[in-house]
Amino acid sequence: MLAEAGIVLTPAEREAIEVADFGLARLDEIGLEIVTYVNTERVCAKELVLFPGQMCPEHRHPPVDGGPGKEETFRCRSGSVQLYVDGHGELVLRPGDQCTIPPDTLHWFRAGDEGAIVSEFSTQSRDEADVFTDPRIVR
Amino acid sequence: MLAEAGIVLTPAEREAIEVADFGLARLDEIGLEIVTYVNTERVCAKELVLFPGQMCPEHRHPPVDGGPGKEETFRCRSGSVQLYVDGHGELVLRPGDQCTIPPDTLHWFRAGDEGAIVSEFSTQSRDEADVFTDPRIVR
Repeated sequence: MLAEAGIVLTPAEREAIEVADFGLARLDEIGLEIVTYVNTERVCAKELVLFPGQMCPEHRHPPVDGGPGKEETFRCRSGSVQLYVDGHGELVLRPGDQCTIPPDTLHWFRAGDEGAIVSEFSTQSRDEADVFTDPRIVR
Repeated sequence: MLAEAGIVLTPAEREAIEVADFGLARLDEIGLEIVTYVNTERVCAKELVLFPGQMCPEHRHPPVDGGPGKEETFRCRSGSVQLYVDGHGELVLRPGDQCTIPPDTLHWFRAGDEGAIVSEFSTQSRDEADVFTDPRIVR
């Protein structure tokens, strides 16, 4: 999917693609594939790949270490993605569409029938700090 | 060039592409074209487009408002770009290659014969704070 979208990875990056199933073992429905380009103390950038119908379940990024929590901008690169953001409702992002999600705000997203590639531009990612609504989830 | 690389912009983004000639009126040699996706207080993401041989002249991002200054990661998406970073020397980025530039560090970059598209992931951009080595430059 990344190659089809014209996104080039190095061989090392291809080896390091993260497959996140959130500990639920239902990857076809709940999960996504992640390429992390950079994740410093200040800035993080990723490509998120979702197969058709895959979803990233509802969660939020609470304050950590006295900071305000992770701020994320999602930009759809290919396919389409349905995005729910607490207080804003649901929207559908198509290629070129984007949405910035404030810290500590519940959100989830699900790919449409073609799947989706979504670029994420954010402050530092600290996955272990994420709070998921479904208590069975282990990130 | 963006369309060829599979990068989709909205009509409003196409209208808002920034053409930076640094006040030198030598755009063929010194300048670049910029799409800013997002620029909040914490995170900025852009696509930088350089025509064949175009360069972004040497500059640094000094501390502002008590913060450490802008941190940038450049990731080459298409073409190639020669990048100089003070203390690291010159390197050539090809698609999939990237480099993180610490705050307040002199750097410049120049596209190869095919031009280049470079994604920039950074902390907030405040162009007016940039310090260029060439005193004739007005950002």
